[in-house]
Amino acid sequence: MSSSDIFIGETIGTAILILLGGGVCAAVTLKASKARNAGWLAITFGWGFAVLTAVYTSAPLSGAHLNPAVTLALALKKDGIPWSDVPIYWGGQLLGAMIGAALVWVAYYGQFLAHLTDKEIVGTPAKKAVEAQEKGAGPVLGIFSTGPEIRVPWQNIATEVIGTVVLVLAVLTQGLNGDGKGLGTLGALITALVVVSIGLSLGGPTGYAINPARDLGPRIVHALLPLPNKGGSDWGYAWIPVAGPLIGGAIAAGIYNVAFA
Amino acid sequence: MSSSDIFIGETIGTAILILLGGGVCAAVTLKASKARNAGWLAITFGWGFAVLTAVYTSAPLSGAHLNPAVTLALALKKDGIPWSDVPIYWGGQLLGAMIGAALVWVAYYGQFLAHLTDKEIVGTPAKKAVEAQEKGAGPVLGIFSTGPEIRVPWQNIATEVIGTVVLVLAVLTQGLNGDGKGLGTLGALITALVVVSIGLSLGGPTGYAINPARDLGPRIVHALLPLPNKGGSDWGYAWIPVAGPLIGGAIAAGIYNVAFA
Amino acid sequence: MSSSDIFIGETIGTAILILLGGGVCAAVTLKASKARNAGWLAITFGWGFAVLTAVYTSAPLSGAHLNPAVTLALALKKDGIPWSDVPIYWGGQLLGAMIGAALVWVAYYGQFLAHLTDKEIVGTPAKKAVEAQEKGAGPVLGIFSTGPEIRVPWQNIATEVIGTVVLVLAVLTQGLNGDGKGLGTLGALITALVVVSIGLSLGGPTGYAINPARDLGPRIVHALLPLPNKGGSDWGYAWIPVAGPLIGGAIAAGIYNVAFA
Amino acid sequence: MSSSDIFIGETIGTAILILLGGGVCAAVTLKASKARNAGWLAITFGWGFAVLTAVYTSAPLSGAHLNPAVTLALALKKDGIPWSDVPIYWGGQLLGAMIGAALVWVAYYGQFLAHLTDKEIVGTPAKKAVEAQEKGAGPVLGIFSTGPEIRVPWQNIATEVIGTVVLVLAVLTQGLNGDGKGLGTLGALITALVVVSIGLSLGGPTGYAINPARDLGPRIVHALLPLPNKGGSDWGYAWIPVAGPLIGGAIAAGIYNVAFA
Repeated sequence: MSSSDIFIGETIGTAILILLGGGVCAAVTLKASKARNAGWLAITFGWGFAVLTAVYTSAPLSGAHLNPAVTLALALKKDGIPWSDVPIYWGGQLLGAMIGAALVWVAYYGQFLAHLTDKEIVGTPAKKAVEAQEKGAGPVLGIFSTGPEIRVPWQNIATEVIGTVVLVLAVLTQGLNGDGKGLGTLGALITALVVVSIGLSLGGPTGYAINPARDLGPRIVHALLPLPNKGGSDWGYAWIPVAGPLIGGAIAAGIYNVAFA
Repeated sequence: MSSSDIFIGETIGTAILILLGGGVCAAVTLKASKARNAGWLAITFGWGFAVLTAVYTSAPLSGAHLNPAVTLALALKKDGIPWSDVPIYWGGQLLGAMIGAALVWVAYYGQFLAHLTDKEIVGTPAKKAVEAQEKGAGPVLGIFSTGPEIRVPWQNIATEVIGTVVLVLAVLTQGLNGDGKGLGTLGALITALVVVSIGLSLGGPTGYAINPARDLGPRIVHALLPLPNKGGSDWGYAWIPVAGPLIGGAIAAGIYNVAFA
Repeated sequence: MSSSDIFIGETIGTAILILLGGGVCAAVTLKASKARNAGWLAITFGWGFAVLTAVYTSAPLSGAHLNPAVTLALALKKDGIPWSDVPIYWGGQLLGAMIGAALVWVAYYGQFLAHLTDKEIVGTPAKKAVEAQEKGAGPVLGIFSTGPEIRVPWQNIATEVIGTVVLVLAVLTQGLNGDGKGLGTLGALITALVVVSIGLSLGGPTGYAINPARDLGPRIVHALLPLPNKGGSDWGYAWIPVAGPLIGGAIAAGIYNVAFA
Repeated sequence: MSSSDIFIGETIGTAILILLGGGVCAAVTLKASKARNAGWLAITFGWGFAVLTAVYTSAPLSGAHLNPAVTLALALKKDGIPWSDVPIYWGGQLLGAMIGAALVWVAYYGQFLAHLTDKEIVGTPAKKAVEAQEKGAGPVLGIFSTGPEIRVPWQNIATEVIGTVVLVLAVLTQGLNGDGKGLGTLGALITALVVVSIGLSLGGPTGYAINPARDLGPRIVHALLPLPNKGGSDWGYAWIPVAGPLIGGAIAAGIYNVAFA
């Protein structure tokens, strides 16, 4: 794969991942969304099928890592990718995550306004939809980045490490395409269902980042976007969903090299 | 493929798509339906598996485009279908969508009456079922066509464009059969899950038409059917779910031709 | 395939189908079940994965028709099964459906008693579980057989015909194994998801029998079982979920022979 | 396969199985979990995809039995595994189940404390999350092991036997890899969906152990962990989810050897 294919593939793929993953959070959270309060199953399947769609689309170009922890593991893995490719993957992933988060804002523009302000939007149907929503406006950082229900740093990072070990170990043992350096078509489905599984089972405490770009990129966009009453970006927590997944990816590569390779 | 195979395949396939897709909207919406209020997950999986069933059934005949935006993208794609086939695909899709919408009306005949009128239907079980429903009758256009929660034309069309780009890009990169001119068996499953994903993540603002025939055909049938108290067909919005998906399909074909082909 | 393989395969497969399909209805309906009120999605996925499990298990023996309407369609289909095999398939299907319904009763024995009587069961946990259920006992025929929400015979039969045409057409075009006379492994998954689709989209009015053995066998068992306060078996409706699916299977075979074969 | 590959594979695989399966129970049960009260569908899909993830990951090492009842059936099956391998499989499965249950405790450490005590955890968000939960603390054994809604031993064991026969028969007829001694990649998906099916349809009365290690290992860990106010480990019931699945596995192997082999 050429460097430009890697960069373009990771950018497109991670943009689709965050557009769809952030999108389901917006759909379930925001006032005047048809999917409001659709529940935890909708969120976990939404993120899982976001992975599926993003990996399918970008796999032919870059092998669809879409996650710095996966890229790190594939560099640490025996016969993995060259270290010189890592910054290209990571750059595309961070850029793509930011593009995806911005597209969520475009797709849900009116919903963000209706949710965050008392401003009247346009025409009767909008007003009626908004009035039909009983709840008050709330912070929207959760549409962009993860956060813990209980703020215990050692537990929060342990939960992210455990979740990422499960994800990356499944990718390394079953998800890779023929050359062992990225995901293929069958790997997209496997990985998507594994992500649903992690969401259902390990998502309760921290919201399962398990991917540094998935958390950091949208957090930057949250800080930059001109959303009224948007609240803080919680930078004090931001290191955990970056460090935890990277540690988890490295541990998974170690387990793989010792037990499976 | 012969022209008649294309036309018959697209008609049968789109009829099944709208029968099942409109059917789940009827099932979740109408009084005296066992699935009433089954929620957003039921709607999104219902539409996704409608795509699966429809593509599986019609793929052997026509390649199962079932969506004018997909047909447009396959004409714009390098080595795609000939432009002379486009009107045959589009004709079958529109006819099929109208047949499917009419079949929803047949399958839910009593439920439409119970929902829209105070008329007593037939016998005790029916009366009991209707009385058990607490809610008043409401408009039923949503069973046929899409509509925005907040009516902001630029956002509404942007949301439809974004959703269709995601759909068509996934179809072009992974869903096509061997000759690259339609969908195959694996493509049916991939496309179905991508449609669930788009529904969960991008369906909140407009109800995700992402297919001009899916919206226009049933809207025509809504205007023609002798449903009592059915309300208007909202023709003022009708151009958006036609134009948005066509624009999205063209953009996706452009991205594909530049980055993937 | 030998006659005994056909009979044993259809008996085992249909028993598993009705055990799991009736089981999910019992799980969602009965007092003192952990899954009580789990909703329409649980029912439709429960029946769909019941098809998956049953077809997977019995496909190697009999081709896993498990449905008299599918058997009829495969006899009517060009180069289909010989008519002399039809009574063997139908016999195994009816016997299996009765065995499956009886096994539901065994697996949910205490739950049926708790639901239908005020009798105290055994020990504290049982009493506590029953007391925790707020609702009164109700009729349980719905765990065995289907029934209409609104009793309009022409609509009820039309809904069953439409649903069965969709099912059988998908089976004929995509679900068959190599010899074209039964289902294979991929066909199990396709058919399962098509059944989820039909349940979500067309199940609202009648509860989607779309299979004469699925309805008639359990109805016979309901009439025979010594359940207290069980109510009637609604024999007046029983002909519709037998005739409708058979008509639907024949129509689907006709469409297949004309348009696809 | 070497003995060490078997032992390591079963330990890793069963640890992942119980981490994810126990995890979804914790996620749905505990105070201050984002997934609290997500419902029965979340639990059944959570366990099913736990099987998928665990089988995918460990299949290359050990064939991914992950269940003493499956191992027993594969020893009883014609041309199955040698009996001398059975203790290696069972040992790895029990050890893995205990590791997995302990990891659930780590991942949900703060949630267990918030659920079981009035102790204030750390900082404002935690307090707010806990206060937002309306329900009182409850026993947590259900996160580790199964228990009956109604305590009727003959029914409870019958339900476990029936469920395990369905599981193991599907594994034996369709889930095995080429050498017939373990599961492969396709078997992972089939088995996962069969487990969702059993959960939806037969999980209501006892919570579907259908696997002795899945129940016994976590029960031992529940007895050992220093959880405050954790309540008893219900050892009086512990023999049923061990004996029932082993009987079911043996019956399924018998049916397979007579009817399918």
